[in-house]
Amino acid sequence: MRITIFLAAIASLLAPIATAGADPAPSERVRRLLAGMTLEEKIGQLDMPSHGGHYDPARVAAGRTGGVLNFGSPREIAEIRALNAQSRLKIPLIFGLDVIHGYRTLFPMPLAEAASFDPAVAEQATRWAAVESRAAGLNLTFSPVADLARDPRWGRIVEGGGEDPMLAGLFAAARVRGFHSGGIGATLKHFAGYGAVEGGRDYAPADISEGTLRDRYLPPYRMAVEAGVDVVMTSYIPLNGTPTTASRRLMSDILRGEWGFPGYVVSDMNAIPEIALLGVADGNGEAAKLALEAGVDQDMDGEVYITELAGLVRDGTLPEAALDRAVARVLATKERLGLFDEPPFDPAAAAVVLGRADIRAASRALAAETFVLLQNKDDVLPIRPETRSIAVVGALAASQTDTLGNNAARALPAETITVLDGIRARAPAGTRVDFVEGCDTVCTSDAGFAAAVAKAAEADLIVAVLGEPQDHSGEGASRASLELPGRQTDLLRRLAATGRPVVVVLFAGRPLTLSEAVDPAAAILLAWYPGSEGGHAVAETLFGDRDPAGRLPVTFPRHVGQVPITYDALPTARPGKVEDRYTSRYLDVGLGPLFPFGHGLGYTRFTQSDASIAARKLGPDDRLTVSVTVANAGDRPGREVVQLYVRDVVASRARPVRELKAFGKLLLEPGESREVVLSVPVRSLGFHRDDGSYVVEPGRFDVYLGSNAAAPLIGSVTVS
Amino acid sequence: MRITIFLAAIASLLAPIATAGADPAPSERVRRLLAGMTLEEKIGQLDMPSHGGHYDPARVAAGRTGGVLNFGSPREIAEIRALNAQSRLKIPLIFGLDVIHGYRTLFPMPLAEAASFDPAVAEQATRWAAVESRAAGLNLTFSPVADLARDPRWGRIVEGGGEDPMLAGLFAAARVRGFHSGGIGATLKHFAGYGAVEGGRDYAPADISEGTLRDRYLPPYRMAVEAGVDVVMTSYIPLNGTPTTASRRLMSDILRGEWGFPGYVVSDMNAIPEIALLGVADGNGEAAKLALEAGVDQDMDGEVYITELAGLVRDGTLPEAALDRAVARVLATKERLGLFDEPPFDPAAAAVVLGRADIRAASRALAAETFVLLQNKDDVLPIRPETRSIAVVGALAASQTDTLGNNAARALPAETITVLDGIRARAPAGTRVDFVEGCDTVCTSDAGFAAAVAKAAEADLIVAVLGEPQDHSGEGASRASLELPGRQTDLLRRLAATGRPVVVVLFAGRPLTLSEAVDPAAAILLAWYPGSEGGHAVAETLFGDRDPAGRLPVTFPRHVGQVPITYDALPTARPGKVEDRYTSRYLDVGLGPLFPFGHGLGYTRFTQSDASIAARKLGPDDRLTVSVTVANAGDRPGREVVQLYVRDVVASRARPVRELKAFGKLLLEPGESREVVLSVPVRSLGFHRDDGSYVVEPGRFDVYLGSNAAAPLIGSVTVS
Ligand SMILES: [Mg+2]
Ligand SMILES: [Mg+2]
Ligand SMILES: [Mg+2]
Ligand SMILES: [Mg+2]
Ligand SMILES: [Mg+2]
Repeated sequence: MRITIFLAAIASLLAPIATAGADPAPSERVRRLLAGMTLEEKIGQLDMPSHGGHYDPARVAAGRTGGVLNFGSPREIAEIRALNAQSRLKIPLIFGLDVIHGYRTLFPMPLAEAASFDPAVAEQATRWAAVESRAAGLNLTFSPVADLARDPRWGRIVEGGGEDPMLAGLFAAARVRGFHSGGIGATLKHFAGYGAVEGGRDYAPADISEGTLRDRYLPPYRMAVEAGVDVVMTSYIPLNGTPTTASRRLMSDILRGEWGFPGYVVSDMNAIPEIALLGVADGNGEAAKLALEAGVDQDMDGEVYITELAGLVRDGTLPEAALDRAVARVLATKERLGLFDEPPFDPAAAAVVLGRADIRAASRALAAETFVLLQNKDDVLPIRPETRSIAVVGALAASQTDTLGNNAARALPAETITVLDGIRARAPAGTRVDFVEGCDTVCTSDAGFAAAVAKAAEADLIVAVLGEPQDHSGEGASRASLELPGRQTDLLRRLAATGRPVVVVLFAGRPLTLSEAVDPAAAILLAWYPGSEGGHAVAETLFGDRDPAGRLPVTFPRHVGQVPITYDALPTARPGKVEDRYTSRYLDVGLGPLFPFGHGLGYTRFTQSDASIAARKLGPDDRLTVSVTVANAGDRPGREVVQLYVRDVVASRARPVRELKAFGKLLLEPGESREVVLSVPVRSLGFHRDDGSYVVEPGRFDVYLGSNAAAPLIGSVTVS
Repeated sequence: MRITIFLAAIASLLAPIATAGADPAPSERVRRLLAGMTLEEKIGQLDMPSHGGHYDPARVAAGRTGGVLNFGSPREIAEIRALNAQSRLKIPLIFGLDVIHGYRTLFPMPLAEAASFDPAVAEQATRWAAVESRAAGLNLTFSPVADLARDPRWGRIVEGGGEDPMLAGLFAAARVRGFHSGGIGATLKHFAGYGAVEGGRDYAPADISEGTLRDRYLPPYRMAVEAGVDVVMTSYIPLNGTPTTASRRLMSDILRGEWGFPGYVVSDMNAIPEIALLGVADGNGEAAKLALEAGVDQDMDGEVYITELAGLVRDGTLPEAALDRAVARVLATKERLGLFDEPPFDPAAAAVVLGRADIRAASRALAAETFVLLQNKDDVLPIRPETRSIAVVGALAASQTDTLGNNAARALPAETITVLDGIRARAPAGTRVDFVEGCDTVCTSDAGFAAAVAKAAEADLIVAVLGEPQDHSGEGASRASLELPGRQTDLLRRLAATGRPVVVVLFAGRPLTLSEAVDPAAAILLAWYPGSEGGHAVAETLFGDRDPAGRLPVTFPRHVGQVPITYDALPTARPGKVEDRYTSRYLDVGLGPLFPFGHGLGYTRFTQSDASIAARKLGPDDRLTVSVTVANAGDRPGREVVQLYVRDVVASRARPVRELKAFGKLLLEPGESREVVLSVPVRSLGFHRDDGSYVVEPGRFDVYLGSNAAAPLIGSVTVS
């Protein structure tokens, strides 16, 4: 029997690095440049105007711009590069864009990639995104988002890596590596706590205790820093009352002092003047001073560094040394990115790269890694070969824009393969495929239901593509309800009433509440927003060419009123019991989530047996090592994700009821079995005290192993 | 023109008292007693067993019980007193009970009382509750609840004073005074942060940043301490990971050290062993040690102090001095309560007091102070004299239990006046009153709708008593939905479809989401759970004998997905705008709440004019003084609540968009006008830094004056 060993990452879960906050010594080039710059040239490096914002070509030509964003066409970028070549010092510009899940060829959204439980998926997808971006003339993306998001109402949950700090951090780090290997720099955002906005309302304040911040919210950011992220972006929000863009503690003490981040910090767009709107600065001058002194080196389109800093320096309010420090960081980052030594940019070359066949093939393959089969009654999936007719229902089935998802960068909807396209392409000859909308993507009217039902009733199988259109998700897309939009649930019920099995292909950028959908739906395949080749990937999965290998990176609640609901809650002394009112539950919804974190079915059946813990007594430098035999007991190949959860049973403060500490994904042929070994350092089992120190307290740790967050207890270890 | 001056309370908003945590020196009696007690007698004082719990009469007779709870009949209490008289030292017992809103005669729930915006209402109600309780032999109530609750999903929001720290604190303090004036001691609970349970799930953990804890959650507790509360109760929850029952910081450093609390601390029921269930103690021995050392002096029915402390002292794990300190606090509190010098208890006397006519009359009058008229289209209320027939609909209209509300102590449902009783009693001769249930209180079936609609269609006016039955509210009654239960909204729609005006009398223990009710309902009168005489109070208000004088002490959201939503949010730089996606809002519900904090209509119309600020430049020891002319422009007498809100415009950290700083309630006859002066010390305009210090920063403060939290800006002051 073969053995597969998975070692859990431990980055960011350990004690602070003692770097004492010193910036790395600047290079000779940076020192020389800085010495020769005028005040205006220095301030220019701290300015990053946006296309459509305060971008000014004359400032570029005058050497007074550090970088630009939201220019995405190779031609525009070439023009700006030419302007910059006219400047005195010709310091290369940053060309930034929100390349979140692809540039021209779109891959699944980051949350979907996290569902692969395989960071290599994100690393490959971001590598291709970077290859296209670089060909287009960009050198920086504003990604990854490492904002731990535990509130599905927040639209930007789609941009992150789910609710678990380790999983989110592994994916953030993988994305950094992928962008780097594709040739562009990466920006970690939005430091820190943006995912905890109150009520899930975008841009709202967050309130997080020190221990929770250290144990949960900060680790994913730190893992991205340790992966070598180049730039860090602030967030819009006040965290515990302090606008992050004015937070010296975050931008200097923690980020540089504790973690040794060597790059530069950029504000989120317009976030510096927004310090004043948050009531923490009296106007733009004070906002600029607060931000710069906090450690925010570059102003993204806020237009206050260029209007305020010179005066602040001249009147002595701001020491020029503070300015120089920021400029040195920007220059050093440009140097690390290799911008000073780049070959000339050829905009014509982009045409060869963008949307290249191998990139689209990668998108198709990677998308299929992210789909989560939530339910599959009577093995209705994969679609049986004898199926003679399929009714595809729902406007999302034919929507190219919604197949791409939000944050679509420079993708072309017309190049996108929809689910309908994919099914038509894949369906065997002789299988009829009919399409009927039923209702539009927001489904406010049931006028088309009767026609849809009539068509569906004639088919052997109904594939209903339901869920959120892409603009229900992403920035500025908070939702108070997590239900299927409009009357989609009614449509689903009507379809099910035909007696034909209904397979729901679900588009979503967040957990939706599917309590009303699980009955009428025979199967539910969560496809997120699957990207440029998404329709092919979905069809291949429906027909069984690929197995659904994703697992939920975030808990799916029964009802929005359960939020926040995560698998790693702190304990209550009175866990919810149906029959006992005086327990921690709701009167009006069932206990726990509808689908737990880590959940996902396959097309085959796996067994896990002979789980064993290698050593029960562990020292602080040992590893907790667990093995289990995983067997494919079905008749199709398939992939299983083995998940290891740990609980510190008694501690000096309440610890989560369980925490994911390791996982591994493996492919097994029918009848195959394999021994899987998961190993996690004891040093990663600790937590932070309120003073920021990290401790692994001796004592008992319970170990759970299985295929989702409800994994059974397999035993305990004692740490000395 | 007369002038009415309201001075805002400032307790608890100032800097810590520097008492250095020393307990008051024990009296001669306490010293002597303590010196003569055996270890077992001492430990007995730290034990408070419950009826139905580990109560043991033999222990009482042996002098090994400090107090008991949940005995409520005078006869039982007399028996226990007699047992205690057999003990060696005859130290008087604590007799405690959850007397939350009355003992035999029930008053409105505490949240309802806060809606009166008149702390005297709570003070009077609690005074009568104490008079009855004392007559029954009790000497301590487990009230007030000063848990600031900003999540209406939490059932115990009904026991507190709403979402505003000052309002909640004023009511907590008033309740302490009322219990004292009626002759029993008061217990502040549940220290601290219980109202912030995650997801509104009872007993769940809370996570609160230091500044938010100090500025918002702690002040109401402190105001109760400053009002002289006798005992403080811990909560069940872990706050930021530390079980409050094991929190030395809360129970000793803040409560005694900063605030100078002289009484004793009791655990919530069973909360000491629950420290182990929370994973912060390894068994009951460690739990007992942690709790006692944290400053928890008495074990409420956890049965661990009596089983563990002796061993811990004998084996040297716990110094006997720690035990003595706790015993001294219990004895000193009993002494302060006058228990050592009480006349003999006569259980027969209770019969004269319980449910006495003057107490019931007080309940009737005070209940009417708490009703909030949420809407009143076309002045459908008060009921017009020419109304010839009224259809009363809804099972709650005739439910004595639900009229009383939860936490009903020793009330007798049979003695309760329902809304139906009240309307029948008050309706003019010749007005027909019909009752039809429509559905039961949880309204799961519409089988009775047709009959209800038929009856309603014949009436001039429909009074539908809808809302939550009492068991949907209170402890262990978290709800994920805030909708009207079951099919009540459907019933309401059906009633409205008759074309007859529908007046909704709303029973509720929390904010409900009434978005679907505001259209079909002509008027909505929020009656909470109005108590023993509630039906009379409601009827008198419906018919206009009394005016609805309550105002919302808590925001009413449109949708549960907006929670938390409070009027005093910290700012965002992008306040929600309907037309701008990139603002802080939801895609799928309207902006802001359905009804704001402070909202409530009357039967007349008020104008506020000539608002003026006495002085615009203020020093730190000055008062912000505002005057306004309030006029009754209608043709009925009525009461208005003038509300003053303040915003610190620029501060070293983000401050709430507004905070209630003063309010005043006044009765005006038709045509009458009066100048109202509201005055608030500048020292109350500050906030806490993370280190716990309190500061009023110089600068501009905006001042808003009006009749709810949407009050208009009237000007600004500058504090130097
Ligand atoms: Mg952005
Ligand atoms: Mg431990
Ligand atoms: Mg919080
Ligand atoms: Mg209790
Ligand atoms: Mg200020």
